[in-house]
Amino acid sequence: MFSRDDLPGLALAVLVCEAVGAAPALVTATGSGSWYATLVRPAFAPPNWVFGPVWTTLFFLLGVAAYLVLRDGRGRERELAFGLFVAQYALNVAWTLVFFGGENIAGGLAVIAGLWALIVATIAAFSRVNRTAAILLVPYLAWVSFAAFLNYEFYRLN
Amino acid sequence: MFSRDDLPGLALAVLVCEAVGAAPALVTATGSGSWYATLVRPAFAPPNWVFGPVWTTLFFLLGVAAYLVLRDGRGRERELAFGLFVAQYALNVAWTLVFFGGENIAGGLAVIAGLWALIVATIAAFSRVNRTAAILLVPYLAWVSFAAFLNYEFYRLN
Repeated sequence: MFSRDDLPGLALAVLVCEAVGAAPALVTATGSGSWYATLVRPAFAPPNWVFGPVWTTLFFLLGVAAYLVLRDGRGRERELAFGLFVAQYALNVAWTLVFFGGENIAGGLAVIAGLWALIVATIAAFSRVNRTAAILLVPYLAWVSFAAFLNYEFYRLN
Repeated sequence: MFSRDDLPGLALAVLVCEAVGAAPALVTATGSGSWYATLVRPAFAPPNWVFGPVWTTLFFLLGVAAYLVLRDGRGRERELAFGLFVAQYALNVAWTLVFFGGENIAGGLAVIAGLWALIVATIAAFSRVNRTAAILLVPYLAWVSFAAFLNYEFYRLN
């Protein structure tokens, strides 16, 4: 599936995904730690240290998936898949800004619902280009589903 | 509806909306003029000079609407409305990056469909906080509907 020639593109795709994904967390982290700590937590809320490694892993998978689609896609299938990928990323960034930056639980819930729908659409579009790329997004969809449920519980409890 | 006390907040909201809205166009403008000029144009495509004043006007209305919601909203209604507003803005920015930056017509179509749905949701949420704020977004929805149709025609013709 990969050859040595893939390395530069793969590395670039992963780096961009990690950077774009981490940026809003870095912007909002300072102010939010204290606010988030004051919330009533659902019993199943993971400890805070879990989120960093999970997101780093997911952004890595997203980078690999995006690279495969850009490499193997042709014409409109590729364009559609990549457009959806960028759109879901934009909502991922928006979610962090709204939830942590805006300390806005109800707004976060609205954003993550849109994000979830766009991830499903992205997976569908990816699967038409490269099956592996689609599968690489499944853990991401699972985590965002869990995060949406978590967001809902924070909404209910606070 | 407005008093002198509203001026600083109103000015800030409008400035942020204009800046966030214009940023992706500035980033992508240089490379895209030539690509966009090569496309087969639908008969009803407006001349290029139309877009600048239209978007500037719309971002102004968005800024005023967002200010009204932040000023008059309370609790979760305000949070939900503002979260949706940020999310639709993120997709607005994503559309410009995908369509002009990525020279990606099919992807743009996917993004603008999501944008359209989020604007409708934002208007619904705004209307529960401030009726004027919701009405201020109607020209924006109308223009994005037109832009979506335009995007579709570019998709069909190119």
